[in-house]
Amino acid sequence: MEKNEMKEMEKLALGAIRATVIDVTNRAKSGHPGMALDAAPTMLALYRDHLVADPSRPEWINRDRLVFSSGHASALLYTMLHVTGYDVSKEDLMAFRQLGSRTPGHPEVGVTAGVDASGGPLGQGIAQAVGMAIAEVSIRGRYDEGEKLMGHYTYCLCGDGCLEEGISQEAISLAGHLRLNKLILFYDENGATLDGPTSDSLTENVKLRFLSAEWNVLEVEDGEDIDKISEAIAEAKQSKAFPTVIIVHSKIGFGSKNEGSHVTHGSPLGEEDGAYAKERYGYSYPPFEIPREVYEYFGKTFVIRGNKAYDDYEEFLGDYRLTHKKEFAELCDAFDRKVEGYLPPRPEFAPDYKKASRQTSGEYLSALLPSLPFTLGGSADVAGSTNTNVKGIERFDSTNTAGRDMRYGIREFAMAAINNGILLHGGIVAYCAAFFVFADYMKPALRMAALQELPSIYILTHDSLAVGEDGPTHQPIEQLAMLRAIPNFNVFRPADGNEVVAGYEVALESKKTPTALILSRQGLPLLYTSDVDKAKKGAYLVYGKEDAEFEVIATGSEVRLVLDALNEIETIAPRIKVISMPSFELFEAQDEEYKASILSCDYEKRMSVECGSTFGWAKYAKHNFGVDRFGASGKVDMVLGEYGFTKDNIAKLIEEMVLGK
Amino acid sequence: MEKNEMKEMEKLALGAIRATVIDVTNRAKSGHPGMALDAAPTMLALYRDHLVADPSRPEWINRDRLVFSSGHASALLYTMLHVTGYDVSKEDLMAFRQLGSRTPGHPEVGVTAGVDASGGPLGQGIAQAVGMAIAEVSIRGRYDEGEKLMGHYTYCLCGDGCLEEGISQEAISLAGHLRLNKLILFYDENGATLDGPTSDSLTENVKLRFLSAEWNVLEVEDGEDIDKISEAIAEAKQSKAFPTVIIVHSKIGFGSKNEGSHVTHGSPLGEEDGAYAKERYGYSYPPFEIPREVYEYFGKTFVIRGNKAYDDYEEFLGDYRLTHKKEFAELCDAFDRKVEGYLPPRPEFAPDYKKASRQTSGEYLSALLPSLPFTLGGSADVAGSTNTNVKGIERFDSTNTAGRDMRYGIREFAMAAINNGILLHGGIVAYCAAFFVFADYMKPALRMAALQELPSIYILTHDSLAVGEDGPTHQPIEQLAMLRAIPNFNVFRPADGNEVVAGYEVALESKKTPTALILSRQGLPLLYTSDVDKAKKGAYLVYGKEDAEFEVIATGSEVRLVLDALNEIETIAPRIKVISMPSFELFEAQDEEYKASILSCDYEKRMSVECGSTFGWAKYAKHNFGVDRFGASGKVDMVLGEYGFTKDNIAKLIEEMVLGK
Repeated sequence: MEKNEMKEMEKLALGAIRATVIDVTNRAKSGHPGMALDAAPTMLALYRDHLVADPSRPEWINRDRLVFSSGHASALLYTMLHVTGYDVSKEDLMAFRQLGSRTPGHPEVGVTAGVDASGGPLGQGIAQAVGMAIAEVSIRGRYDEGEKLMGHYTYCLCGDGCLEEGISQEAISLAGHLRLNKLILFYDENGATLDGPTSDSLTENVKLRFLSAEWNVLEVEDGEDIDKISEAIAEAKQSKAFPTVIIVHSKIGFGSKNEGSHVTHGSPLGEEDGAYAKERYGYSYPPFEIPREVYEYFGKTFVIRGNKAYDDYEEFLGDYRLTHKKEFAELCDAFDRKVEGYLPPRPEFAPDYKKASRQTSGEYLSALLPSLPFTLGGSADVAGSTNTNVKGIERFDSTNTAGRDMRYGIREFAMAAINNGILLHGGIVAYCAAFFVFADYMKPALRMAALQELPSIYILTHDSLAVGEDGPTHQPIEQLAMLRAIPNFNVFRPADGNEVVAGYEVALESKKTPTALILSRQGLPLLYTSDVDKAKKGAYLVYGKEDAEFEVIATGSEVRLVLDALNEIETIAPRIKVISMPSFELFEAQDEEYKASILSCDYEKRMSVECGSTFGWAKYAKHNFGVDRFGASGKVDMVLGEYGFTKDNIAKLIEEMVLGK
Repeated sequence: MEKNEMKEMEKLALGAIRATVIDVTNRAKSGHPGMALDAAPTMLALYRDHLVADPSRPEWINRDRLVFSSGHASALLYTMLHVTGYDVSKEDLMAFRQLGSRTPGHPEVGVTAGVDASGGPLGQGIAQAVGMAIAEVSIRGRYDEGEKLMGHYTYCLCGDGCLEEGISQEAISLAGHLRLNKLILFYDENGATLDGPTSDSLTENVKLRFLSAEWNVLEVEDGEDIDKISEAIAEAKQSKAFPTVIIVHSKIGFGSKNEGSHVTHGSPLGEEDGAYAKERYGYSYPPFEIPREVYEYFGKTFVIRGNKAYDDYEEFLGDYRLTHKKEFAELCDAFDRKVEGYLPPRPEFAPDYKKASRQTSGEYLSALLPSLPFTLGGSADVAGSTNTNVKGIERFDSTNTAGRDMRYGIREFAMAAINNGILLHGGIVAYCAAFFVFADYMKPALRMAALQELPSIYILTHDSLAVGEDGPTHQPIEQLAMLRAIPNFNVFRPADGNEVVAGYEVALESKKTPTALILSRQGLPLLYTSDVDKAKKGAYLVYGKEDAEFEVIATGSEVRLVLDALNEIETIAPRIKVISMPSFELFEAQDEEYKASILSCDYEKRMSVECGSTFGWAKYAKHNFGVDRFGASGKVDMVLGEYGFTKDNIAKLIEEMVLGK
């Protein structure tokens, strides 16, 4: 093609993309056209000249990843997927933001071909992209000929909002530290947020901020200059050491009468302004009509490049599966999350085994990590305390990408969101650890794990008042309730060594549900009757007869406390059964018959005991003993005594229930 | 005193402080001496030469504020309070980290004289300090002769951990933007975190990062050089436009055999190493013995300065109360949070009033803000959507410190923590607003509000599936349960205009409990029988007879839905009563008689209806209808229909309960 002709085509394609964004949001009478319009040239440059992905194989493991951290610009993403040949039809676009469509309000992974991550909650997309870039580096570092097996870029689009959110700093700082040179972030600097000009709340020097975090910073002054954007991407791809941010200066709602104003952020342009904008784009087609040439334009660039890359990769893989049988099989298992053949044998605990469940967890990890080679995990600077520092497992960093021990730093939120990114990428069993009370900091990312159906594993230790001296800021109270209320999220609080093993097996075998293991700081003696398989059902009988008259349900450290309490009331004990209930969610997943056999007493004759908020327990028992105020700093036994977690007090409470006091 | 003598005294005082830190942690066999030791010279310089506060009047409103964002260094803070004459005795120090002591593991406001903020969860202290600095500026800007009424510095001590947490960036960025020149942050750069050297996870250029956020950056190379530190503070106090960070390079665990190593971070030194360190300090007194000269040293500096400042202030205030009667009375009310005389009259709603509760909230704010002059509030870039942009209320910024409308930017977590700081400072009724689903981002600060007993007000809108098109990332499901599980936290979800007013009155009248108002995006018609006073009791009868046979409990938008459903089953309706329950917590605070009169039906004959997780509802009803999976993007009516929130379906469910199906 002649240069002039090419420029004409480029203009037509850009006009088609922008016009479609307008049509899509206008038709839905809903959506956020502002950034979707102004970031169109960036996406055009990326798809046309750089992005390597095969639209007919959207799950190809070595594709470039693209995360819309600004999920509200979804209309642009769907439009790009449509014009570049993904399975997103015109009808799908016309159903934008409608119930059951493939084009929901914010991108949802699993719903739309070509969407690599769900987006919406600002800032998390950047961390998810960091996770993907880490996964790419890790898999590449893990295998012989790794650079052929895994070699892609991770792109991410963000705006002011993402950068104002603190999680972005956590993720940016860690990405610089880890030298993730194949991570390329577009900062669409469009000058407006929902409420007004960005300068109302953000005046920092973003360029300097990225430099301080050891990033490569490129800047494109004119967000309409597609060639310059493309050149910047080309330069970014050459970075050998640092992640790159490309700051693209654009005008929000480009083309609209309100171009440059925040009013284009959250509302469709409408017919009149839409027509005005299309005229400015020089785009004269009717709504939702895109000329053949536009599809061909991307067909000849993005699609051909992607098809070829996929074919080349397949050819390489055809050889690799023969020359590297073991590696190939492992890689397949890793991406299928087939862990069954890699789990360590269940440990046999001596009857006098008594360790904190965080310690048992550490022991389990010590057995697991050598036998399950495709893990990557770490903690937010509490590896020693959470027992996640496994001997012999090397640190992952820029100089040792085969390492599997991550040092996330004191960045709980980014850690959890990065974990999501690693799992979205695939090929890795990811876990992360923190003190349980700091699940608060991780909450927004825990929700996104559940929503994206990612089998993340959270190792959360120091799980109750028994934290002791560190006091109320460090003693979880309401955190169990907080996690149990999240849909598609397994909370598992083991009572002893066997139950720790059960929790790990549940977590590792899960395909679509995250699991939080809630572990004690203090020692827990082995129960006489604990059982791994039974514990995996969420709740089971650990003491008494199935048809007992009264029932006490407990979790974690409180199970043994209840058993000890029964020793104090020997005449009453035979009328009681004790249920260990490590997981509400797993129990709810059992059949009605099983559930009825476990919770068989009259509602009034059931009591729950847990060293945490009673909130949520009324579903299982009329009498709920827990902690509905904040904790206190002091020696563990003193604190537990103050809050009634002694065998004498529990015995008294059980007695009161039985005697109907 | 001769210069030599002064240096000797300084050495003695520093030795006494450090020795006491060692004694305190050794005796408790618990605590974090590392930073407490290395930051001692900074605190000595601050208290001796700069900090203006009167130890005998720790609540003096114009004192300098000091926040230990690194709350784990509490042993240092308690030691400083002791040697500078606060009501912290040697016995208190000896009870460090013991149950019921005044010296808990992390600083707790309200427990210890001289502790201005609770600390522990990293990063939040910086945001709380930013909030205090904002409060100071705001009060100063509000009054005639404001610069005499309110003129103090806010100091904050932080370490690597606080800076790794993302909230620090949110707070730092906003502080720079707002030009909080009287905010002085000490960054104790001691080279180690809990798990190892800081460089394991943090290699960013912190200096550049602060510069990018428009801070004044000072650096003290030798953390032992008290004079240099003092000079830096003096220079920082001169800053006319920018907040200042003083980067103090120190060695963790200074004096210990393990000086410079992370092993001093979380464990007491023990007797032997403690003795070694004391020898290095040249400090030869027995444990817990502090020579008289040390107290005198601070008596002649810090205490005299503070006493005089207090006396001068009182003298000024004596005049001010005469010359500015109205202002003085208002200031007193503001610091006492006496809002009663300032509340607008309760609005009378027309019978056909139908507005989203976020709109009613906006109307209430429009009436409140002109009549209650000591407010400061805003949103995380969703002022328009949360209806918190009140006409006539000017923006607060560096050029208009009398403004009361804050633009927090897209920084939910910092917003909530800054809000805590404003309330800790006192003199302001603070509120903040966000979309309800982003309560997730705010959670750690909501907990700190509850723990610190701060009457914060959260305006959280877009409260259910009725968010519609924005889809599952923006539709709250488990957030109500999350908040209800927090101790000392009021959740209030109004069903109509009257209940919105009730919620505001509860929130404004609260002295020690935060309140979250959970508001709808969609219109809510006025109930026929809603009542402000009754709603303030948390739950009350809105339909049917008190002694009805069955009972349906609902909140917010679902109250009217239930009433509409009853219209569909007229033969059954007379057997049913309907309870509106805007607040679990307020209901629980009522006497047993009232509670029994409201929840009077058999447990099996009660049903709850709420468009959110059913988690927690079993306490009040056997049958719980809600949403225990994530939402979906679509038109509001379509989404609500899909999830069963139609009058037909609710009618069917009620019928099933009544007929015992």
